[in-house]
Amino acid sequence: MTRVVSDGIGRDVLVTPSPVAMVWQGEGRPHEALAVPGVSLAPGELLVEVELATVCGSDVHTVLGHRHAPTPLVLGHEQVGRVTAVGEGAVASDGTPLIVGMRVVWSVTVSCGSCDRCSRGLAEKCRALAKYGHDRVHRGWELSGGFATHVQVRAGSTVVLVDEALPAAVAAPASCATATVAAALEAAADRVRLAGATVVVLGAGLLGITATAMATDAGARVVVSDPDPLRRSAALSFGAAAVADSRSGFRSATGLGGVLATLTASGAAEPLIVLEMSGSTAAVSTAMNLVGVGGVIVLVGSVSPSDGIRLDPETLVRGLITVRGVHNYAARHLISAVDYLEHAWYRYPFAQLVGNTFPLALVDDALALAATGTHQRVALDPHLGA
Amino acid sequence: MTRVVSDGIGRDVLVTPSPVAMVWQGEGRPHEALAVPGVSLAPGELLVEVELATVCGSDVHTVLGHRHAPTPLVLGHEQVGRVTAVGEGAVASDGTPLIVGMRVVWSVTVSCGSCDRCSRGLAEKCRALAKYGHDRVHRGWELSGGFATHVQVRAGSTVVLVDEALPAAVAAPASCATATVAAALEAAADRVRLAGATVVVLGAGLLGITATAMATDAGARVVVSDPDPLRRSAALSFGAAAVADSRSGFRSATGLGGVLATLTASGAAEPLIVLEMSGSTAAVSTAMNLVGVGGVIVLVGSVSPSDGIRLDPETLVRGLITVRGVHNYAARHLISAVDYLEHAWYRYPFAQLVGNTFPLALVDDALALAATGTHQRVALDPHLGA
Repeated sequence: MTRVVSDGIGRDVLVTPSPVAMVWQGEGRPHEALAVPGVSLAPGELLVEVELATVCGSDVHTVLGHRHAPTPLVLGHEQVGRVTAVGEGAVASDGTPLIVGMRVVWSVTVSCGSCDRCSRGLAEKCRALAKYGHDRVHRGWELSGGFATHVQVRAGSTVVLVDEALPAAVAAPASCATATVAAALEAAADRVRLAGATVVVLGAGLLGITATAMATDAGARVVVSDPDPLRRSAALSFGAAAVADSRSGFRSATGLGGVLATLTASGAAEPLIVLEMSGSTAAVSTAMNLVGVGGVIVLVGSVSPSDGIRLDPETLVRGLITVRGVHNYAARHLISAVDYLEHAWYRYPFAQLVGNTFPLALVDDALALAATGTHQRVALDPHLGA
Repeated sequence: MTRVVSDGIGRDVLVTPSPVAMVWQGEGRPHEALAVPGVSLAPGELLVEVELATVCGSDVHTVLGHRHAPTPLVLGHEQVGRVTAVGEGAVASDGTPLIVGMRVVWSVTVSCGSCDRCSRGLAEKCRALAKYGHDRVHRGWELSGGFATHVQVRAGSTVVLVDEALPAAVAAPASCATATVAAALEAAADRVRLAGATVVVLGAGLLGITATAMATDAGARVVVSDPDPLRRSAALSFGAAAVADSRSGFRSATGLGGVLATLTASGAAEPLIVLEMSGSTAAVSTAMNLVGVGGVIVLVGSVSPSDGIRLDPETLVRGLITVRGVHNYAARHLISAVDYLEHAWYRYPFAQLVGNTFPLALVDDALALAATGTHQRVALDPHLGA
């Protein structure tokens, strides 16, 4: 239990024992604990005590050196926690004034609210964007990632209240996987109505199986492709009408054959929505070849440099195809993600997706296990003793 | 002047002298005239006497063998004409019953109205699609293209009434270039508001300059790129705020340098709309590199096979980029195209875009001139003597 001493208007906060963040030092080096005894909260800011943080695939990519990241860095951007101290005027997304003890999740992004992009409704690409778990540790924002006992949630984040009944393992990924899926499905539905559509989901990681459940609940028939039999099996338990082995079939280089065969065998209609959630360039090519006339491809997974794919523009033109890139997400997507999970979590095995939970001090072990891909998620619980 | 004898309910029509269609026999062979003395009009059909037909770039591509087309074939899908005979129940797009003497243009496509694509609002990609100027001549639809004295306009086409004041040279391309531009701008505006946006138009052919005028009138600041100085000059007279030589600049392979330098020099904001109307794959790459975060690329020009481009999916994902393929168009786009031309034609030199007008018998000469690219359009006037 932490003890908080504040100045009464919620500005300068002293927490006992000191909040601790696990700081990643760079590829191949272990995390180091950083104690942060005092936090100064600006108006609109929060100090949140982390209840559970989950390890996202991008955290793994960072520590493996597959993507560039500044160091020293507190990783983690999927977490749920409780408000410990409140800066002046801090409110939740629905306008509720935040008070100590409230259970919350928050956006992965911090936006300024005043630049040209924020002004045109693109706050997730703010010119002064900061991201939890992505920014170099610096004085005044040491508690900047979820792999910590506390996070300093900055003004310009979207904070969403979370029902007490929602398991922490389900709530933690809301701010990354679930909200991103909400953004992807909104992009798809902008072109093609989900109800009654055949949707192909490429990749059955947490994004893919969450998309499967959400699209199924919206009335779509979802076919999921993944090379991993365990992940295909998971997709079935999240509502998939059929699953395909992306490595099988007559065009194994793209995985198209397996998906096409599955579509045919399951009697599904021409897919008008294809969600690329694997990050594999082969899957991007598959998406381009699979989507029906007038359909939409939503690209989500491709967040690492690659050699790219060969694209025939004529295919897009004659097929009236739409391709939408989705990255980060807007406030409304986190709100709808939490709403979805609160209403749907018990109908699918969301609560079983966290394989192992580690104490904070064993963050390197947690990342090593996450890197094996054995579990959809592994978690860190700051209240567990190492 | 033609004389029409019908059975009174507009079914079987005998025209004197006989309607004549110019039939293309295949690459390297001259057109041959085909007389079609009797036409049987099904319900909803029209016989229209062609006032003027213009030669589209795709007619040229067809005769040069750059695209596959079935033969024998009556080319031409940009034309304006007058109703000569009316099948039972034929109506214009606004519901007006069509009567002899009305001046009309009509869609390039004929749709069944009942297949799955027609049912989901994608009539322009109907499963049983026919296209004027694109389908092999067959018994019962010999008058199937604009390079003829008459066209048999089939039920399932969109027929739009045309004001008498609109010059024929302006009205004829409405059913191809103008309506396609209306579709492209709708696709762009679906993502980014035109008013106040910086729009880059790649290619200053008829599509490009029409898009320039329409986007300018919608409040956009339009920068046009083309390698041809005459076309760049035309773009300026159609409202372009600035023009760029797509061959210049530090990245001449993609033309990006020239466009970027022009954007900078003209003080334009980051382009959030890029319209690719040239069909060049280099321009498609330029579009991908130019568009700003949250922007939209509309691909229109790429209607021929190519080696394709290299696409980096990460760029689309991180940039929240939308790519929309546009081909053919819906009824509403032809309606808005005619409406636009009727209101705007005299403010831009639309009427001067037809360089030469040929009699029908000299269709091969017309196509040869069109192939030189000297004029935005050349025309065929069936009332001119050879």
